Amino acid sequence: MLSITQYREAFLGYLNKKIITKEPANLYEPITYILNLGGKRLRPVLVLMATEIFDTSYEKSLDAALAIEVFHNFSLVHDDIMDDAPLRRGKATVHEKWDLNTGILSGDAMLINAYQLFQNYEGPVFKELAQLFTKTAIQVCEGQQYDVDFEDREDVDIKDYLKMIEYKTAVLVGASLQMGAIIGGASEDCKKALYDYGCLLGIAFQLQDDYLDAFGDPETFGKQLGGDIIENKKTFLYLTALQKAKSTEARQLEHLYSINPIDAGGKIEAVKSIFQESGAKELAREEIGKYTQKAFEVLDKIEIPEDKKNLLKKFGSMLMEREV
Amino acid sequence: MLSITQYREAFLGYLNKKIITKEPANLYEPITYILNLGGKRLRPVLVLMATEIFDTSYEKSLDAALAIEVFHNFSLVHDDIMDDAPLRRGKATVHEKWDLNTGILSGDAMLINAYQLFQNYEGPVFKELAQLFTKTAIQVCEGQQYDVDFEDREDVDIKDYLKMIEYKTAVLVGASLQMGAIIGGASEDCKKALYDYGCLLGIAFQLQDDYLDAFGDPETFGKQLGGDIIENKKTFLYLTALQKAKSTEARQLEHLYSINPIDAGGKIEAVKSIFQESGAKELAREEIGKYTQKAFEVLDKIEIPEDKKNLLKKFGSMLMEREV
Repeated sequence: MLSITQYREAFLGYLNKKIITKEPANLYEPITYILNLGGKRLRPVLVLMATEIFDTSYEKSLDAALAIEVFHNFSLVHDDIMDDAPLRRGKATVHEKWDLNTGILSGDAMLINAYQLFQNYEGPVFKELAQLFTKTAIQVCEGQQYDVDFEDREDVDIKDYLKMIEYKTAVLVGASLQMGAIIGGASEDCKKALYDYGCLLGIAFQLQDDYLDAFGDPETFGKQLGGDIIENKKTFLYLTALQKAKSTEARQLEHLYSINPIDAGGKIEAVKSIFQESGAKELAREEIGKYTQKAFEVLDKIEIPEDKKNLLKKFGSMLMEREV
Repeated sequence: MLSITQYREAFLGYLNKKIITKEPANLYEPITYILNLGGKRLRPVLVLMATEIFDTSYEKSLDAALAIEVFHNFSLVHDDIMDDAPLRRGKATVHEKWDLNTGILSGDAMLINAYQLFQNYEGPVFKELAQLFTKTAIQVCEGQQYDVDFEDREDVDIKDYLKMIEYKTAVLVGASLQMGAIIGGASEDCKKALYDYGCLLGIAFQLQDDYLDAFGDPETFGKQLGGDIIENKKTFLYLTALQKAKSTEARQLEHLYSINPIDAGGKIEAVKSIFQESGAKELAREEIGKYTQKAFEVLDKIEIPEDKKNLLKKFGSMLMEREV
């Protein structure tokens, strides 16, 4: 097997070869643009790695890996419109650089392109990939809808929140691993277990991302700190703090989440202090640990050679080792 | 075989059974809404009819028919956003009744739902349907992009225009017939010929729709007359008039297409008069006749029993017999 970096490079080589601007250029240029903005390419690397676990060359899963990355970027383009986000990876978002209509239509074309890439697989493998992809894509849409709904809902609980991040983020990580396993010809048990590993890791990763949004190191965390607090996002930290804080602090937290001051510095500090004093900060760390632990337990039980398991473990550790 | 009305009713019965609002309701309610706004259901009826031509029950193609209708409505929801249209079939469009984000996300979910419906087909039929659908869906997006591009382009010619309406409208009509033929187990020749029949009919229909937009009977034409003229749409009538009109009239037409008067009545009359005097009106009628003729010629050559051919012919005639 190759290293994570080598898989990423193999994938990027394929992406550069395959993603080219055709006519009509106004439809395809934004697709080339967003796919070349960079990113960690975590999902395609997982597809390639999972294939090689089952003694099948990663080259066979390049199309599936590209489909997953194209789909992921489709969801970014449409989500950026919905969030009115001006920047993505430090560059203008598609609807900012072009316009709303271009964002919608290029996104649509990307979703269809993803399906197109699966067509390079034969018979039953094609159907299995397409079915898993469709199920996952619907869940990603549902997750995005739950996320939007939470903004106006007062009755969101932690279970709702965990389901939302599972759908919006984690299932695609699980599906990436399962796709590699499908192409590698893995057993049903292995496919299921790899899906679960990816899904649990995805939840842990998203919980950590939310945690770092409040308590991360500004030097290493890629995004603006406190973004979720500014946008009054009902994250694990917020929902846990509401539950655990004393009544006065809980009311204060609700108040802080009802205002949108121009200079958000004071609000961020006040919210973080409630997160800390209510014990939510500590509970969030525990929850991240719990999901990471669960993920590794699932991985341990999968019946694949130890040396191959280790690369998946390394990937998981790398993902979860960002500075907290 | 059933009558066109009976196929439509069978389809509507299936649609009502299958399209139900699940959770999250904010994602699925707009889908139920748009799919219940009515419409002629031309495409699904074609899928069902084409299946029965090959001695296969229409019931086998209900899922494909629904997929086509769901996809068609997906494109309406996203197009209505792009055109900033407040009304669709006399009712509020999805982004008007809900909001922009709902329109985008529900549309995305519909596109995925369409793929989901094809999963009810087995092995090679599934792949053939999915492949045809993907090819068609990409062309519909490209057609929409060409349509958008034409607004700002000064060098659109009639060939460009015909390609645009072929992609944006006609290929989906062709694909509807071909899907029925695939499910019915037709020969490759029959599938291809039915696709061509649908595609030619689709072009004729769209040309006629553009013609009626200027010269239709306000009593029977469903939409506001002169809409294309108000929006300065570069239709067959416009492009032909530019080519055929005397230099003074051509310049006047270009001028009329550069203004957006609040009361468009005078502009519409002036443009229509140039369409008429340049001979574009007559040439448009001829072009509609030519494509209709071509469609029926293709149909005549298909090797299927005469009685079955007649229903397809009847469908084509019905489509093209609106008052001109």
